[in-house]
Amino acid sequence: MNTGLIETLETAFHPRAIAVVGASEDPFSFGYHYVRHLLDYGYPGHIYPVNPGKKYILDLRCYPSLSSIPEPVDYVICCLPASKVPDLLTECPPKGVKAVHLVAGRLSETGRQEAKELEARILQVARRLKVRLIGPNCLGIYYPRGGMAHSYNLSKEAGAIGAVCQSGGTSALLVRYGELRGLRFSKVISYGNALDLDESDFLCYLAQDNETKIIAAYFEGIRDGKKFLKVLGDVARVKPVIAIKGGRGISGAKAVGSHTAAIAGSDIMWKAAFKKAGAILASDLTELVDLLVAFSFLPPIRGNRVGLVSAGGGLTVMAADICEEAGLVVPPLPSDVREKLKIKAPEIWDWVGNPVDCSIMGGVAIGFAEILKEIPRMLVNSSHFDFTIAEFTDDNPFSEEVWSNIAKGQTEAFINLSREKLMPLIAVVSSGATSSDRLPHQRWKMLAEQRARLVDAHIPTYSTVAEAARAVRQFIDYWQARATT
Amino acid sequence: MNTGLIETLETAFHPRAIAVVGASEDPFSFGYHYVRHLLDYGYPGHIYPVNPGKKYILDLRCYPSLSSIPEPVDYVICCLPASKVPDLLTECPPKGVKAVHLVAGRLSETGRQEAKELEARILQVARRLKVRLIGPNCLGIYYPRGGMAHSYNLSKEAGAIGAVCQSGGTSALLVRYGELRGLRFSKVISYGNALDLDESDFLCYLAQDNETKIIAAYFEGIRDGKKFLKVLGDVARVKPVIAIKGGRGISGAKAVGSHTAAIAGSDIMWKAAFKKAGAILASDLTELVDLLVAFSFLPPIRGNRVGLVSAGGGLTVMAADICEEAGLVVPPLPSDVREKLKIKAPEIWDWVGNPVDCSIMGGVAIGFAEILKEIPRMLVNSSHFDFTIAEFTDDNPFSEEVWSNIAKGQTEAFINLSREKLMPLIAVVSSGATSSDRLPHQRWKMLAEQRARLVDAHIPTYSTVAEAARAVRQFIDYWQARATT
Repeated sequence: MNTGLIETLETAFHPRAIAVVGASEDPFSFGYHYVRHLLDYGYPGHIYPVNPGKKYILDLRCYPSLSSIPEPVDYVICCLPASKVPDLLTECPPKGVKAVHLVAGRLSETGRQEAKELEARILQVARRLKVRLIGPNCLGIYYPRGGMAHSYNLSKEAGAIGAVCQSGGTSALLVRYGELRGLRFSKVISYGNALDLDESDFLCYLAQDNETKIIAAYFEGIRDGKKFLKVLGDVARVKPVIAIKGGRGISGAKAVGSHTAAIAGSDIMWKAAFKKAGAILASDLTELVDLLVAFSFLPPIRGNRVGLVSAGGGLTVMAADICEEAGLVVPPLPSDVREKLKIKAPEIWDWVGNPVDCSIMGGVAIGFAEILKEIPRMLVNSSHFDFTIAEFTDDNPFSEEVWSNIAKGQTEAFINLSREKLMPLIAVVSSGATSSDRLPHQRWKMLAEQRARLVDAHIPTYSTVAEAARAVRQFIDYWQARATT
Repeated sequence: MNTGLIETLETAFHPRAIAVVGASEDPFSFGYHYVRHLLDYGYPGHIYPVNPGKKYILDLRCYPSLSSIPEPVDYVICCLPASKVPDLLTECPPKGVKAVHLVAGRLSETGRQEAKELEARILQVARRLKVRLIGPNCLGIYYPRGGMAHSYNLSKEAGAIGAVCQSGGTSALLVRYGELRGLRFSKVISYGNALDLDESDFLCYLAQDNETKIIAAYFEGIRDGKKFLKVLGDVARVKPVIAIKGGRGISGAKAVGSHTAAIAGSDIMWKAAFKKAGAILASDLTELVDLLVAFSFLPPIRGNRVGLVSAGGGLTVMAADICEEAGLVVPPLPSDVREKLKIKAPEIWDWVGNPVDCSIMGGVAIGFAEILKEIPRMLVNSSHFDFTIAEFTDDNPFSEEVWSNIAKGQTEAFINLSREKLMPLIAVVSSGATSSDRLPHQRWKMLAEQRARLVDAHIPTYSTVAEAARAVRQFIDYWQARATT
């Protein structure tokens, strides 16, 4: 491992002072956003806005140049147009700058010759001066523990997912989508055109980072294929790596060129490389988040036998179909569970199977509520299942006032059960997605509340059985592959 | 077509008087639910609760028996236990009852011999007395125009989707999920064990029903395969039929037996039958709703060339990949659009492609906002695309106060464009799904509001590009198949 590289990135994530060069008070400019982000997220070190035309920016003393800052600066966020970058770089070594984040785009990704030449010149100057670059054409760093962020409205809570994203906007969406699913992030790097530091460097850094347990990635291309394949294999042996490869098709690959100037490479080659490395591919952000939820909240699962609990005849039938189609096994209800059911539900025990349709026990709400709470426990205590998926549904004949209490009790029982850690538990809650002002009735709100409680309890929670089954199947594949190597 | 059958079902949907036999004041009983539903949904005819032990139920005069009701009764909702059904049936002919809905379950679906015998006896009595049965083990009818419903919190607004659902809970979920997506229903029938009237009968009825333009279905098994195949082909020639077949796998097929006592049949046979008939299969409720959204709000599309608009580099790349993987074509930006872009966005026109990444035009919010509004129009006016998918995203560097206005303007422009009906338009809004009280910031609320506006404008709106692409691909297949037959 390149210790110089690790040291440089450690400094970038823990700078004693940051200069925002090209700082601005125009609320539509990056020079404004980055100063505001450092203030908003509580960066504890010194912030030095640099702009020759301003005395103060957001109440911070502003400096005419990097050189005029009175103390050493570890890290520079450069919001200048690309043409001004070479001159800025020459000011860096005297100030002790280790790394510069280049926000500016409109470089090689435009496909224009003069932009490509400018980009090459920037690299040449940086290499000569031994200043490392993040970017250009990127959003840079989000590090909630360090009070650093590259976008508005990212969580201030830190977690254990590190992310390497060629696309900055995608990295912000990943953090925001993830937040609603209970995911929090250690360090996120958006690296754009990867002119100097590239995907392999950031992967190496996250691999050795103690705050990072799982690595998420969005790649569009690779700068150095040989280096990448070696690094990916090394990193995936240490931590799970789950990545989207953008630019798999013809038009996507073209879009990659105009986005980050990367060469997308063939989809087949990527798939083979990921499989060989033991890394996992996701097709879009939804699937990436679904997988991160499984890897964050589930203990290793090596078997594929699922106990299914749902309330609703059609829902259970569909759940079983979907699970089997995703490569899971839905075994019959074993005799130990049947014996327990015989005591708890003598009227119906012989007729209930796996999936367990709790609505069979409907009719009397009180009994229904109790059985809804107890069935997951019966499955969990059986040795015939590797994990349990419980679907929390609105499929019942009760009015919203009656149903509301039943649903709350069911959620609470499931959360309590999950705390005992007897078996991996997965929840499915389909709670609709629309403006809360437009919800036609309280059933949706109630389901959404149960969902939020399950997420808060760190139970992996999905919107549909299909999403849960696909994610958990890939999760099992991962652990099965590791068991055999 | 069986005119007797059509007349019977017309009467069931337009009864002058309904008796709820086994009516109750116990809020956990179906006898309570059905009386309350008729009141809640505004059924305009006479409601006669029948219960020998009560004088009034929900302030309605209660009768000791069906026979004691002073006027003819067209339709009976029977909430009695199954064992009491044969006696009730004998009271039906003198009162002029055309159809009886049997709520009671615990019949052949339990797998028990005595229950199967009781079910057979019920059929025998009904046939002899010429009373037609809906059910048993089902929720019956939802008909918002007629003030009839089988569940709480279904929309009171009527629409053009008719649904035949073997599972009652599934039919209620279909209506509730559909409502959030802008779907409304004409007539919905949950028919359970299909003892007398079966899936083919209900399909025939909806095929000739003028209030129904599209037919949705959830089948678990078929009573009469030959009849069904003939009917399905006939009906699918007249109206789109989109169905889920529950019980495709081993465990699902078993669950079907204990749910509605149906025999699931082989998945391959069903797929072949549906293809031959020109009907469409969905794998779960989410996919069914996605398809219904396409069939409800899109004009026929016979070509697969998609114009893609998104804001965000990674998002556009992923959108293009996903569309191609779903079998759509994402052609390069044609010269007519490029010429327009050259005028509107001289700095970047040569670099933008299809998918159009509006974030390339970012930096200056005002210009960005304008181009976000104008790009869809440029694509729509080009002859190089068959339809346009626009993704409304949160992938932008702006603060929530700045972004809020941009997003609103973009939505409004898109809705206005859709009104001109120049090209089929599809929207994608990924607005998160959790309790509104738990939303960490306003960005989600704002996205959810845009989503609600698009749905209200009857623009087909999906949560992800993947869902949109898969639904529209099946929609195109449908229209292409019809063009060639």
